[in-house]
Amino acid sequence: MDQDQLVALITEVVAKQLCVNSGADKIPVAISNRHVHLSQEDMSRLFGANHRFKVFKNLSQPGQFAYEEKVTLVGPKGVLENVRILGPARTKTQVEISVSDGIKLGVNAPIRDSGELAQSASLTLVGPAGSTTLPEGTIIAARHIHMHPEDATRFGVKDKDRINVKTLGARGLVYNEMLVRVSDNYKLEMHIDIDEANAAYLNNNDSVEIV
Amino acid sequence: MDQDQLVALITEVVAKQLCVNSGADKIPVAISNRHVHLSQEDMSRLFGANHRFKVFKNLSQPGQFAYEEKVTLVGPKGVLENVRILGPARTKTQVEISVSDGIKLGVNAPIRDSGELAQSASLTLVGPAGSTTLPEGTIIAARHIHMHPEDATRFGVKDKDRINVKTLGARGLVYNEMLVRVSDNYKLEMHIDIDEANAAYLNNNDSVEIV
Repeated sequence: MDQDQLVALITEVVAKQLCVNSGADKIPVAISNRHVHLSQEDMSRLFGANHRFKVFKNLSQPGQFAYEEKVTLVGPKGVLENVRILGPARTKTQVEISVSDGIKLGVNAPIRDSGELAQSASLTLVGPAGSTTLPEGTIIAARHIHMHPEDATRFGVKDKDRINVKTLGARGLVYNEMLVRVSDNYKLEMHIDIDEANAAYLNNNDSVEIV
Repeated sequence: MDQDQLVALITEVVAKQLCVNSGADKIPVAISNRHVHLSQEDMSRLFGANHRFKVFKNLSQPGQFAYEEKVTLVGPKGVLENVRILGPARTKTQVEISVSDGIKLGVNAPIRDSGELAQSASLTLVGPAGSTTLPEGTIIAARHIHMHPEDATRFGVKDKDRINVKTLGARGLVYNEMLVRVSDNYKLEMHIDIDEANAAYLNNNDSVEIV
């Protein structure tokens, strides 16, 4: 081994080590509570045409935020109050609940990727100025991973790939076949709901690894 | 290959195939809701010394049953009513809750195997005749698999082994390092709590596979 080869080898080992130490192979966890994305029309219907919505805080995904306003979800078997509205407004209203929320409300919501609402569950939303009964639009959001294109290159994956992701600890598990979404607008983050977080004993900002 | 060898080979292949078809490599799922195992002393304290407990139903594990009686769990941040008591009585009272129950009650219960109660969480139990505040005894039960010795032989595992178990479907995942308990008193069953079931979209009597 000549000097150049030695330098290359040391560089590689050090780079690899730094990568591990900097958490470059880790994906941070973001846990979603139940929430609602409203259409402009439903915003007016529930809060009044002249209501000015107020931003409560920005979310970790760029351009996404939570409003101060909340709604009540009413199903055939139960009610969930104070459910947060996320912005910006969408073309079609989408309600995201957990399996346990679905049991409480008495609705049989399917597990779907965001936006895939055809023949999803019906639910009534009530706001201070009115109510609306959605014929469909209520889903249990399928777990997924947001990645910036740079992350995708680093991990060697592309948009819509499905990958297995491992958690550590007393309830360590592997989420199989997680959907990867890649966009310039995304920040690296695994999105799971509260049921999925509790099952793995994960908190926000914990890290998971690709298997 | 002589005739005996051929018969042996065919027998082996057919037996293997039958095993797969009969679900012999599958483990049925049992989902535990929050529950309490009371000591004889706490049974008297909460329900009165002369109270005659009534059996509500037998559980799938031989010799285990649910009483009709229920208690209220009271923590610093919340209350859970109508929590089922399981029998028979134990030497020490043990309360088993989920991560989400712990959040609601405001108690920081550790994930533990049944019976390992040292320095677990404190909680108040209230019954119709009295109450008791346990200094410890509240845990989040670690997921585990009950096996009869015949099952253990079939799967090639022994008591206290840890194995990985796979679920299928839209939320398919692998529970890593699940504790195996083997006893003549056990029936083959994987025990998980409601959070863990919802995360994998499992129902009672669904099946899982050893990886």
